[in-house]
Amino acid sequence: MNYTMLTDFYEITMANGYLECGMGDRIAYFDMFFRQAPDGAGFAIMAGVEQLIKYLSELKFTDDDIEYLRGKNMFCEEFLNYLRDFEFKCDVWAIPEGTPIFPGEPLVTVRGPIIQAQFVETMVLLTVNHQSLIATKSNRIVRAANGIPVMEFGSRRAQGYDGAIYGSRAAYIGGVVGTACTISERMFDIPALGTMAHSWVQSFDSEYEAFLAYAKCYPENCTLLVDTYNVLKSGIPNAIRVFNEVLKPMGIKKCGIRIDSGDITYLSKKARKMLDDAGWTEAAVCASNSLDEYIIRDILRQGAKIDSFGVGERLITSKSEPVFGGVYKLVAIEKDGEIVPRIKISENVQKITNPYFKKVVRLYSNETGMAIADVLTAYDEKIDESAPYEIFDPQNTWKRKTVSDFSAVELQVPIFRGGKLVYESPTLGEIKDYAEKELALIWDEVKRFNNPHTYYVDLSQKLWDIRYDLLKSYNE
Amino acid sequence: MNYTMLTDFYEITMANGYLECGMGDRIAYFDMFFRQAPDGAGFAIMAGVEQLIKYLSELKFTDDDIEYLRGKNMFCEEFLNYLRDFEFKCDVWAIPEGTPIFPGEPLVTVRGPIIQAQFVETMVLLTVNHQSLIATKSNRIVRAANGIPVMEFGSRRAQGYDGAIYGSRAAYIGGVVGTACTISERMFDIPALGTMAHSWVQSFDSEYEAFLAYAKCYPENCTLLVDTYNVLKSGIPNAIRVFNEVLKPMGIKKCGIRIDSGDITYLSKKARKMLDDAGWTEAAVCASNSLDEYIIRDILRQGAKIDSFGVGERLITSKSEPVFGGVYKLVAIEKDGEIVPRIKISENVQKITNPYFKKVVRLYSNETGMAIADVLTAYDEKIDESAPYEIFDPQNTWKRKTVSDFSAVELQVPIFRGGKLVYESPTLGEIKDYAEKELALIWDEVKRFNNPHTYYVDLSQKLWDIRYDLLKSYNE
Repeated sequence: MNYTMLTDFYEITMANGYLECGMGDRIAYFDMFFRQAPDGAGFAIMAGVEQLIKYLSELKFTDDDIEYLRGKNMFCEEFLNYLRDFEFKCDVWAIPEGTPIFPGEPLVTVRGPIIQAQFVETMVLLTVNHQSLIATKSNRIVRAANGIPVMEFGSRRAQGYDGAIYGSRAAYIGGVVGTACTISERMFDIPALGTMAHSWVQSFDSEYEAFLAYAKCYPENCTLLVDTYNVLKSGIPNAIRVFNEVLKPMGIKKCGIRIDSGDITYLSKKARKMLDDAGWTEAAVCASNSLDEYIIRDILRQGAKIDSFGVGERLITSKSEPVFGGVYKLVAIEKDGEIVPRIKISENVQKITNPYFKKVVRLYSNETGMAIADVLTAYDEKIDESAPYEIFDPQNTWKRKTVSDFSAVELQVPIFRGGKLVYESPTLGEIKDYAEKELALIWDEVKRFNNPHTYYVDLSQKLWDIRYDLLKSYNE
Repeated sequence: MNYTMLTDFYEITMANGYLECGMGDRIAYFDMFFRQAPDGAGFAIMAGVEQLIKYLSELKFTDDDIEYLRGKNMFCEEFLNYLRDFEFKCDVWAIPEGTPIFPGEPLVTVRGPIIQAQFVETMVLLTVNHQSLIATKSNRIVRAANGIPVMEFGSRRAQGYDGAIYGSRAAYIGGVVGTACTISERMFDIPALGTMAHSWVQSFDSEYEAFLAYAKCYPENCTLLVDTYNVLKSGIPNAIRVFNEVLKPMGIKKCGIRIDSGDITYLSKKARKMLDDAGWTEAAVCASNSLDEYIIRDILRQGAKIDSFGVGERLITSKSEPVFGGVYKLVAIEKDGEIVPRIKISENVQKITNPYFKKVVRLYSNETGMAIADVLTAYDEKIDESAPYEIFDPQNTWKRKTVSDFSAVELQVPIFRGGKLVYESPTLGEIKDYAEKELALIWDEVKRFNNPHTYYVDLSQKLWDIRYDLLKSYNE
C-alpha cells in the first residue's frame, strides 16, 4: 500500500497554490513538536521514525492519482506534471526512536521546497503521533509493573489494523516483553505469545477435560485460563489436577494460570497459595482484564501475587488519553539566502510557536550521568561544554540556573539530505535497549505518573530574542 | 496486505490444539456482541462488515507463514498442512452496516468447524470494534450539530494509517458530509475537502498577501483561515478586503472563513456580523479546534453562528471513549447433530453470556413505524406478527409488556454460506442513507447523549429457559 494520497486535502490545494504563486521552490522549515505529554506525564517517548522513513522513501503519485486530481478541476497542469515527476528533495532531521522527549522540542524538522515540506505534514504527524502515543503509554504501564513482565494483548480493540500492528511495535519500544499479535513477530521480531481463550474451555464437556487436552498438547507451554466458570472452586483445582496428572510425570515444573476477571488482588493471592500448597511453586500467575498503570500500581501495592501482566485495550488505544497532540508548524523560510523566522500567534500563549531553524541539545551531568535540561538553540549555535552555561525559563526569565561540568548532546540526527536517505534505522531490539538506557538517565521525579516535576526545556538567548522580537512586532 | 497473520497467537495454539484433539471439525457457534455502548450511549451503529468480508475472502496462509509457524516448534505437521490448504468453510451472518445496534445482540455470528470459527476471532473483533466505535461517535457529533454539516478532519491524530482511512469511512456512515483524508475519496468516494493551514499564511510576508494569493488561485473555493495572527483585528478584515478585491469583481458570493482557535461562540458571532456588515452574507463560517458533541451542543446553545464544523482528533479516536468493547464468545457446539448451548459464567453478572444459536428480531410499531424492542430468539423460532407478543426483561422478569400491531424484522443477514460469499455489499452511500433512515426509527429518548432511555433487548422464553437451566446447572 502506497500512502502518498493519505494526506489532508489541503496539503494538495496549498501545494498547487504555492506552485501557481511561483513560490513552490521557496525553502521552508517545518518543526513537528507537541505541547503536552498525554496523561499529564512529564515526558513522552519518540517512536515512528522507521515508518516515516518508509513513507518518505516511497512518495509517488500514480497516473491514477493524477487523473483523480485532474478530475477535481482545481489544479493546474503544471502542478499535475510536477506531481507526476515528483522527487523528494527535502532535508529531514529527527530525534531517534526510543528517546525521552519533552514538550516544545522539534521531534522532526523538515527543510526543503515549501511545496514538498508542506505536503508531508499529514503523514509526519500521523506516523509519529500514533507510535509515540503508544510507546509512551506502554512505558507507563511497564514502569507501574515494576519489573514484572507486561505483554501487549490489545489487537482486538485497536483502532484499525495498523493500530494493532504498529501499536504493538510502539508498545515494544515502550518496554513490553511480547505481544499477542502474531503478525508483529513476523514483521518486527517481537515475541508473540498466548495460550487459550474461554472458548477453548467451553468447547469441551468439562473444564477438566479442556485443561487435560491442552496440557497434553502443550506440556511445555501450559498456561491455563482458570476463570471460565469459577476461579477458586473449579479453575485452579482443575489446573492443579492437570499439572499433577500430565506435567509432573514429565518432570515439568514451569507452567501457569491466567486470571481474566474478578478481583485480581484477592484471586492472585488465593491462587498463589493454592498452587504453592500443591507444590507448584514455579507455576506463574498471569493477570489480564482491562489493566492499566493505575490498576497495576494499586494491585501490586495491595500485595497481588502476579508473575506477568497481559494488557489490552487500555494500552493499545492509550485509553485514558488516546491523542498525541503533535503539530507541524512553519518556523522559517529562506529569503535571498537568509533564514527568516516565522511565528504562529495565538490568544492561548501555550500555542504560540518557537520560530527559526533550531537544534535540540540535551545537557547531561558529568557527575551523575543524568539529564539536567534540554536547550533549543539556533541551528548555528554551539554550546561550549568547557564553560558554565546559564539556562533560563523562557516564560519566567528571572528563573535562571547555571550548569557546569556537563556534556551537551544534539538529539536530532540527519535522516534525509536533499531527499537522499542518510540514516540507517536501528533494529527494533536496539531501539528498545536504547529507550531503556536513555530512560534511566531521566530523574524519577520527572517520571511520576501524576504531577511530575517539569523537566527544563529552555531556549538559548538567541532563540529567545528572535521569538520576543517577532511577538513584539505583531503586537504593535 | 494480507491480514491472515494479524491474529492473536492463541487463536493458532487453540486451532492446532483442536486438530490434535481430533476436535477440529466439531461445529461451533460464536457470537460477536458488545456489553455497553461507548460514552454511556443508548445504542451504537454497526460498521465494518465490508472489510470483514474482504478479510474472510482473502484468508490464506503463505509458505512463509507456514515456515514461521514450523519454526515455533509447537505445531504438528498435520496442522501446518491444514493451514497450507486452508479453505474457509464457515457460515457467517451479520447485522448490516449502518444499523442501530444494542448491547447483547449478536452483531456477527459464525458457525463452522471450530478450528476456523475460532481462528477468525481477532479480525472479526478488530474490524467491527474499530469501525462501529467511530461510526457511533461520528453520529453523536453529527446529531449535536443539528443539521449543520460536519466534516472529518482527524487523519493526523488517528491511531495509525487504517485508523485514518477506515475511520473516515466509518465517520461517513455516522453522518459526516466529507473528510480531509484524500485517499478516502479515492477508495470510498467520500467527498474530500480542505483549504489552507496556518503555514500558508505564515509563508507569505503578510496575511493579506497570503489571502490574496489564495483567492486568486481558488476563487470558487475560497475559505480563508483567519486565526494565524488575530481573528478580529487582522484575519477577518483581511478576508473581507480580499473578498472585495478578488471575488466581488467576479460576481462570486460564496466563500468562507475558518476559525481554528479561541472562543468559537464569541468569535463566530463577531465574524458573522463583520461579514454581514460588509455585504458578505453568503460567506460561511467554519469552526474547528478540538470539537466534539458536547462542545458543539454548548456553543450552538450559546448562539454561535457556524455554517460547518471540522472535527478532528475527538472524532477519529473517539477520544472520550476510545474502545468499543465487542467480544466474541462460543455460544453453542453441535454434538451428534444437536445444537448444544454453551455459556461463559462470571462473578460479574453482566459478563455472563447468552448461549445458543440465535436470531435478533426488531419489532417495529405498525402505527408509528418506530422500533419498539429487539428480541433475541432461538434460531428456529418465528415471532408471529398477527398475534400479540409478550416481551419481558431478562434480568427483572416481572417487567413485562405485550406488544401488538407490529412488524418483526430479522436483523442479521447471511454473509457466507459454507465459506461462499452470498452477500452483496451496498455502496458506502447506500449504507449512509440506510443508517439515516434506520436512526429515524429510534426514539429520541434512546438517542440522548447522557442517561438515555434503555431500549429493550429481551430474550424469547425459549432462550431465557436455556440460559437459566445452564446457570442453574453450574451453580449446583
